[in-house]
Amino acid sequence: MSDEALQYARAHRDAYLDDLLKYVAIPSVSAQPEHKPDVLRAANWLTQHLNEIGLDSRIMPTGGNPVVYGEWMKKPGAPTVLIYGHYDVQPAEPFDLWKSPPFAPEIRDGAIYARGADDNKGQHMAHIKALDALLRATGELPVNVKIIVEGEEEIGGTNLPLFVREHAAMLACDCVMISDGSLFDISRPTITYGLRGLSQMEVTVKALARDVHSGHFGGNVQNPAVAIAQIIAGLKDAQGRVVVPSFYDDVRPLSTDERAEIAQVPWGPAEVINESGALQAFGDPDFTANERKGARPTLEINGLWSGYTGPGGKTIIPAEAHCKITCRLVPYMDPQKVIDAVQAHIRKLAPPGVEVSFKDVHGGIASLIDRSSPLFQAAAAAAEATYGNPPYYELEGGSIPVVADFLSVLQKPVILLGFGLPTDAIHSPNEKYSVECYEKGIEASVRFLTGLSQK
Amino acid sequence: MSDEALQYARAHRDAYLDDLLKYVAIPSVSAQPEHKPDVLRAANWLTQHLNEIGLDSRIMPTGGNPVVYGEWMKKPGAPTVLIYGHYDVQPAEPFDLWKSPPFAPEIRDGAIYARGADDNKGQHMAHIKALDALLRATGELPVNVKIIVEGEEEIGGTNLPLFVREHAAMLACDCVMISDGSLFDISRPTITYGLRGLSQMEVTVKALARDVHSGHFGGNVQNPAVAIAQIIAGLKDAQGRVVVPSFYDDVRPLSTDERAEIAQVPWGPAEVINESGALQAFGDPDFTANERKGARPTLEINGLWSGYTGPGGKTIIPAEAHCKITCRLVPYMDPQKVIDAVQAHIRKLAPPGVEVSFKDVHGGIASLIDRSSPLFQAAAAAAEATYGNPPYYELEGGSIPVVADFLSVLQKPVILLGFGLPTDAIHSPNEKYSVECYEKGIEASVRFLTGLSQK
Repeated sequence: MSDEALQYARAHRDAYLDDLLKYVAIPSVSAQPEHKPDVLRAANWLTQHLNEIGLDSRIMPTGGNPVVYGEWMKKPGAPTVLIYGHYDVQPAEPFDLWKSPPFAPEIRDGAIYARGADDNKGQHMAHIKALDALLRATGELPVNVKIIVEGEEEIGGTNLPLFVREHAAMLACDCVMISDGSLFDISRPTITYGLRGLSQMEVTVKALARDVHSGHFGGNVQNPAVAIAQIIAGLKDAQGRVVVPSFYDDVRPLSTDERAEIAQVPWGPAEVINESGALQAFGDPDFTANERKGARPTLEINGLWSGYTGPGGKTIIPAEAHCKITCRLVPYMDPQKVIDAVQAHIRKLAPPGVEVSFKDVHGGIASLIDRSSPLFQAAAAAAEATYGNPPYYELEGGSIPVVADFLSVLQKPVILLGFGLPTDAIHSPNEKYSVECYEKGIEASVRFLTGLSQK
Repeated sequence: MSDEALQYARAHRDAYLDDLLKYVAIPSVSAQPEHKPDVLRAANWLTQHLNEIGLDSRIMPTGGNPVVYGEWMKKPGAPTVLIYGHYDVQPAEPFDLWKSPPFAPEIRDGAIYARGADDNKGQHMAHIKALDALLRATGELPVNVKIIVEGEEEIGGTNLPLFVREHAAMLACDCVMISDGSLFDISRPTITYGLRGLSQMEVTVKALARDVHSGHFGGNVQNPAVAIAQIIAGLKDAQGRVVVPSFYDDVRPLSTDERAEIAQVPWGPAEVINESGALQAFGDPDFTANERKGARPTLEINGLWSGYTGPGGKTIIPAEAHCKITCRLVPYMDPQKVIDAVQAHIRKLAPPGVEVSFKDVHGGIASLIDRSSPLFQAAAAAAEATYGNPPYYELEGGSIPVVADFLSVLQKPVILLGFGLPTDAIHSPNEKYSVECYEKGIEASVRFLTGLSQK
């Protein structure tokens, strides 16, 4: 079954590429209200496309942009896989940095240059074309398939989590497949089995009713910019470890075997410096860079502001100071418990003469995916057959909130197998997606779906 | 001589008030280019006014707004006093908070409501009307008088210091009189004999080439917002004392007598809280609020910024963090030595993984005025005779850079005797200047000039 479909896909590569080019030409920028008609056009286009392929598809409303849902459920007794993607894209600004217009896709040096080419239209389109190849070549799919493609991934929000909860029965499956990330490189796939969660808050430190003259009052009042600095300085030690009491209490420990496996991924201080532009690598000396990325929690200041920040000087003592804090959480940590611990420690650190308050307080749990599932093994085998090497298994540093929603509502493994490359400049000008990545993505999906049927 | 002039002034109070109303109606806002013609109009009006009174006056160019200069030098052998003022005013925005338009002066409840009524047109106009009363009533002045009224006080800048250096011979005098401040209250004059200097700088702490994803890199790179917090927290102790080595080395000590004199000024923690809106008073416990205001140096953060400061969250690690620092200096401290000490300490506090740099580095020395001069005593006697009580002697917390320029270039005492009230809302909407303050200012000036002639 797999071989016929792979042959069919190769024979129709031009048509498959054309369809992707049509899809990425729709500027479905969810963050920009003027693109609302384009967002809806992308959803309609995709729904029709799924129907043409042979899935039973429809547009379903949410509190915001609609969800596109399709299914092929003609294999009673076989496993059911739910494929997830998103049809919305990041804004393309600044336009003048694009070599070709972001919504007029152009193929150069073997890659499609367009906003959304990698993130995420090219990746979920690879799965859709795998479904097409299997249906055309064999008249059926090897397993039952559901597909959900949302329109608000790039703007966050609460509509999809609500949709998943409300449609849990419709979405019931044996595993979820998400391709919304990267290979390590074109010959080395990566399967992510953990994602960090998040606890975040904005802190306000107030000392005065208004900004005051630093000459008249300097020396006689507390300075909230100094106070917030003292607070922040009291949150971490010189090695970057968080010193909030109980912060690390629930962190999932790494076994010797897992540390050895993580150590295989060739990503260390040199890569950190190269990719981030850091002046030097820096972190808890008891862990490696890979471990610090995915297996250890963090506390970071995302923004900090107080007083006069314009050109020149203004000799004031500011009334207030503010910072935004996010903690990245690893499995077993409770976001609310972390929020409570951080807030209690901040209140304790606050010097006399200031009032501390919090707003925009949110939390989301980390995800840990059960790798023992045979369905998970089908993904690994398909990836190895397609890219030539067994996958790296990674604990990812970022957060994909929908994974936690799928895990908690559907209670099935979520397989994170990216089809892009780290160099694809997603969210940046000149986003690209190599034609080879697209075609290998189609192959990997054909092999995965076929392999699932044998588990 | 004094009595005839005082009688003349009282008899012409309406005309003196009318002239001030005409003067404050000119919107000479130096910070706003659209008011440039008004700035020049104010300078012309004032020059003509001084000529009409009987001074030999002219407009003199600077690199920016012109200086108005006038003199009456017909008393060989008598002392010469240089009177300073500024004809430019602060912007009046926000207009909608004014009860009457800022440049259509209105008298309500015994006060002139207009931008510049107190700061500084009403105060230097009191001196000008004293000159007028003396000349009209007696045909001469008791001493030689020079007057310099500048047009850039509210925008700082380097034009006046250059002008003073270039015209040192023209400005030569026995003492300088500046009325650009406040009485303690209407029955209690204040003479300021010290002003704080300033050392200021902007600090940049850089860790990354660009903002990066806090999930991908959190835990593996230094966060410059955390680093700058650690630096700032290392500049002061929990009681607000500066812990920069050598910071206090050159501070002028207070004698027991001077501390006792300062203690007479009824300004303490309650006044600090009332005037600043501070949640509580705070400062070095070894000194009183008055001492901390004028006799102790400070280190304050005026502005602090890093990363994302808009609404909601953005999960980044910022590339850089910045702060603006000003130190208020007291006599005997060297601004450059303080700058060097603060920068050296900041470099020492900087954690690994960051680069520290400085810009907008400036310094200005503190001023200490010799109170033993008999000319200084003439001001005290005139103030006591006018307001009914001997003056408080104060070390002021703020800085008036021109005082240091006068002291260093002219090498004569500068007498700081304010004619306004602390409640006059200078720099704010509904600035006012009581008619009583104006008239007492004229009287104090008549008595001061007359008294000078007897020294």
